[in-house]
Amino acid sequence: MEGTAITQEYMNFRSQHLLSVKGITLESIDELFIVAEKMRPYAKRQKMTRVLEGAVLGNMFFEPSTRTRVSFGSAFNLLGGEVRETTGLSNSALAKGESLYDTAQVLSGYSDVIVMRHPEPHSVSEFATGSRVPVINGGDGPNEHPTQALLDLFTIKNELARLGQSIQQLSLTLLGDLKHGRTVHSLCQLISLYSNLKIQLVSPKALALPCKYVDMLTNAGHQVEIGSDLEKGLSQANIIYQTRIQEERFESEQEAKRYKGYFRLNKQIYSDHCLPNAVIMHPLPRDSRNDANELDNDLNKEPGLAIFRQTDNGVLVRMALFACILGVEDQLEKYDKEVNWQIGLK
Amino acid sequence: MEGTAITQEYMNFRSQHLLSVKGITLESIDELFIVAEKMRPYAKRQKMTRVLEGAVLGNMFFEPSTRTRVSFGSAFNLLGGEVRETTGLSNSALAKGESLYDTAQVLSGYSDVIVMRHPEPHSVSEFATGSRVPVINGGDGPNEHPTQALLDLFTIKNELARLGQSIQQLSLTLLGDLKHGRTVHSLCQLISLYSNLKIQLVSPKALALPCKYVDMLTNAGHQVEIGSDLEKGLSQANIIYQTRIQEERFESEQEAKRYKGYFRLNKQIYSDHCLPNAVIMHPLPRDSRNDANELDNDLNKEPGLAIFRQTDNGVLVRMALFACILGVEDQLEKYDKEVNWQIGLK
Amino acid sequence: MEGTAITQEYMNFRSQHLLSVKGITLESIDELFIVAEKMRPYAKRQKMTRVLEGAVLGNMFFEPSTRTRVSFGSAFNLLGGEVRETTGLSNSALAKGESLYDTAQVLSGYSDVIVMRHPEPHSVSEFATGSRVPVINGGDGPNEHPTQALLDLFTIKNELARLGQSIQQLSLTLLGDLKHGRTVHSLCQLISLYSNLKIQLVSPKALALPCKYVDMLTNAGHQVEIGSDLEKGLSQANIIYQTRIQEERFESEQEAKRYKGYFRLNKQIYSDHCLPNAVIMHPLPRDSRNDANELDNDLNKEPGLAIFRQTDNGVLVRMALFACILGVEDQLEKYDKEVNWQIGLK
Repeated sequence: MEGTAITQEYMNFRSQHLLSVKGITLESIDELFIVAEKMRPYAKRQKMTRVLEGAVLGNMFFEPSTRTRVSFGSAFNLLGGEVRETTGLSNSALAKGESLYDTAQVLSGYSDVIVMRHPEPHSVSEFATGSRVPVINGGDGPNEHPTQALLDLFTIKNELARLGQSIQQLSLTLLGDLKHGRTVHSLCQLISLYSNLKIQLVSPKALALPCKYVDMLTNAGHQVEIGSDLEKGLSQANIIYQTRIQEERFESEQEAKRYKGYFRLNKQIYSDHCLPNAVIMHPLPRDSRNDANELDNDLNKEPGLAIFRQTDNGVLVRMALFACILGVEDQLEKYDKEVNWQIGLK
Repeated sequence: MEGTAITQEYMNFRSQHLLSVKGITLESIDELFIVAEKMRPYAKRQKMTRVLEGAVLGNMFFEPSTRTRVSFGSAFNLLGGEVRETTGLSNSALAKGESLYDTAQVLSGYSDVIVMRHPEPHSVSEFATGSRVPVINGGDGPNEHPTQALLDLFTIKNELARLGQSIQQLSLTLLGDLKHGRTVHSLCQLISLYSNLKIQLVSPKALALPCKYVDMLTNAGHQVEIGSDLEKGLSQANIIYQTRIQEERFESEQEAKRYKGYFRLNKQIYSDHCLPNAVIMHPLPRDSRNDANELDNDLNKEPGLAIFRQTDNGVLVRMALFACILGVEDQLEKYDKEVNWQIGLK
Repeated sequence: MEGTAITQEYMNFRSQHLLSVKGITLESIDELFIVAEKMRPYAKRQKMTRVLEGAVLGNMFFEPSTRTRVSFGSAFNLLGGEVRETTGLSNSALAKGESLYDTAQVLSGYSDVIVMRHPEPHSVSEFATGSRVPVINGGDGPNEHPTQALLDLFTIKNELARLGQSIQQLSLTLLGDLKHGRTVHSLCQLISLYSNLKIQLVSPKALALPCKYVDMLTNAGHQVEIGSDLEKGLSQANIIYQTRIQEERFESEQEAKRYKGYFRLNKQIYSDHCLPNAVIMHPLPRDSRNDANELDNDLNKEPGLAIFRQTDNGVLVRMALFACILGVEDQLEKYDKEVNWQIGLK
């Protein structure tokens, strides 16, 4: 594939906002993931690129999220760029009655691209109307978190490839609190770009996937099974996507507690009921307290546990996004340097 | 103008603290603004300079201020330098009884130049006595915020130039809470370096500009008019400087509420009572809540609305300050590189 | 000494965690301090190195500490690397029940080396079990803070050298709250690698050094004197290490208040009772409030006051640690650049 050909394909990312998974096409995903794969040697520190030297990311987390914030920031640093950031809402100008439009006008004068997280649904889209540079939605409350969905899909494709399978062989079990998890909802939207896959939805009835997403999957032509039997739900999956009970989204703590630890996955269950080499994913953080423990630590050495490959993939996907939005995805190697320090642990 | 000539002029900035607008001369302002203009292509990403590669800014915000902190940080990054920063007072060593002198001694061992904001008046000057590197006052409570005054003056000169006018043709209306706003007070001091300009002060009587500043303007030889009639105050101005009611500086919330939304400026008033092309400035944030709304959003498309050009100018002025303080203002081009990424939005 | 020889000596730092002062050998300290001395011209900005350009430090302060966080961050910047950081515990994934193992797995995918501070003892060691990159303990509650101990020892050796003395001539007085100060405890462990030194322990009886550390010093063959007479304790020391009353570690504020300001050191006492040129150290922050004031400001011009040379040394030692852990200590000069800006104040 030629560089110029790639360039023309990125209609959906170049110099544009990424506010939602809506509107993303299979073609743009495929192209993005090709770039993400090109990022692997840089992220693994086999080589280094300075392609974004001098560029500035505004990493604006008006709702704190260490993991996601650092992932975006490191991705930008790995491309050679600088990161300015903020964390938390209180005391900011927003608290003095500044509109999101104004905040965006001001902050977009300070950076080349902005990642924004904010607790209010649709706040990031409102912010984007005032921004003079591309805005990436880093999560707007219960609404969207498109880069999580992209890294989840990238991980699914990669893990299947590791098993010698293609996306058309996907048998995906979504497990746990399917009602509240925005990562599950966004992933369903991306999965609906494909057709004729096997999807198992396993949850307590009260935490079932909203009809809207079930319909979306069905309309895409997938074979959807809905149930609340853990063992049955696991038996056919080559990819298992476990979720955390989103306590903070329940009406009462009491209500949330009812479901905590309901669908635990541990080594015993994995060995007894899952396909050999079945892949386990989770959007993280997983709750490792005794009363929750949805994904037991005794799975930590299991080769199928992909949860940390999944977060590692987040860096690749975010690097690729930055590169495509800023239009440097074909220039990476031009700015290559050798890595001169020791990698990892002895 | 020769490089060496410029160098000799920067008596007021090179290797010095900038703690106050006091003591700044017209000559040093003129020279600073020449450098600020040289920063425009770098800030607009038409080219890039790495002149401060390896330098470290200590961006010490002991009072949070996302906008100002990010503006300083980005300005330093745009010159190629690195930024270490802190935000907030609690938990810091200051809370354990450390003197500002000690804090400065310690932090000045970690950076090449320090920006400091702190809620207490004169705290930054006290801090500077212990610093071994230049300190820029990023705002010390109600006292001073010299870079805001400089960027305001820079904007006034630029906007007048855009209208084909010079500073000597300035007819400036200061509008709103002229009692509490430190930006207005500092701007009055800089304006008093000039003479024979037209200044209109429009506020509720209880929020009038303190006598000290009125005297300063009068003594400088300006034609000062004081009043509380919005429409009359606007009619002659080529520059209108609107302010926010500084709720946090009133004795009670009740008291502050009395004046909230008192002098609103909107498209109707602007069209009916202002000169064509009159420039609207504001130190931001503007309060866009319904009960305040001192500067209506229906002005957002008005070419005269300069509030975001004003914040953009803040980056230029701060870049210029860093360059002059660190003595690299004549070396920018030596470290030029091309910008290889896409700028702005499609 | 040849480069390769140095390389082979760093068994204790290269590609390894630094979690504790335990296990550090005299040989590895000597080698580290040689590298720290090589850092001096870079820290003093006489030249610049970009040896870690492209590397990313994860500066993870789950307990806030402006001074230590900025010191580590600046040290990494001075080597040319980038810094991603976090400050504070609340709202982080840890609060959602994530294990330290998981946090480490995730964060270690985002950086080349991690500094971690956390309020819980042994938390950093637990974190390190999940990290795929080297972890430096930046302080785990009352337990350990190994880089502080290293910079203290480095300062002792440097100050003695400044007086024309060697470590074997050390007569060290540890002064104040010897019960709670982790810096004192860690320093005692490093001092115990030597033998036959003079150590005076001066504190109120209730705040005496725990037996464990007294035994450690005695077993190492040091001449240990224990007392609560300030003047006697000072009379023989060439190095005085003063501490702060660790209010936050007392059972009640009342209890802490009893000892506040108990052993004050000021110019009068220093002149009357200390050896000429006796060196004064302090882990900082010193409490300069009237009721504490353990180290009076009237000592600020005293050449023997080494407290800010001590914090400056922290940068050298942390630069050396990063360089050794990442294995670039012999490549510094290869990446040298000139410093092109003005240093310090006029």
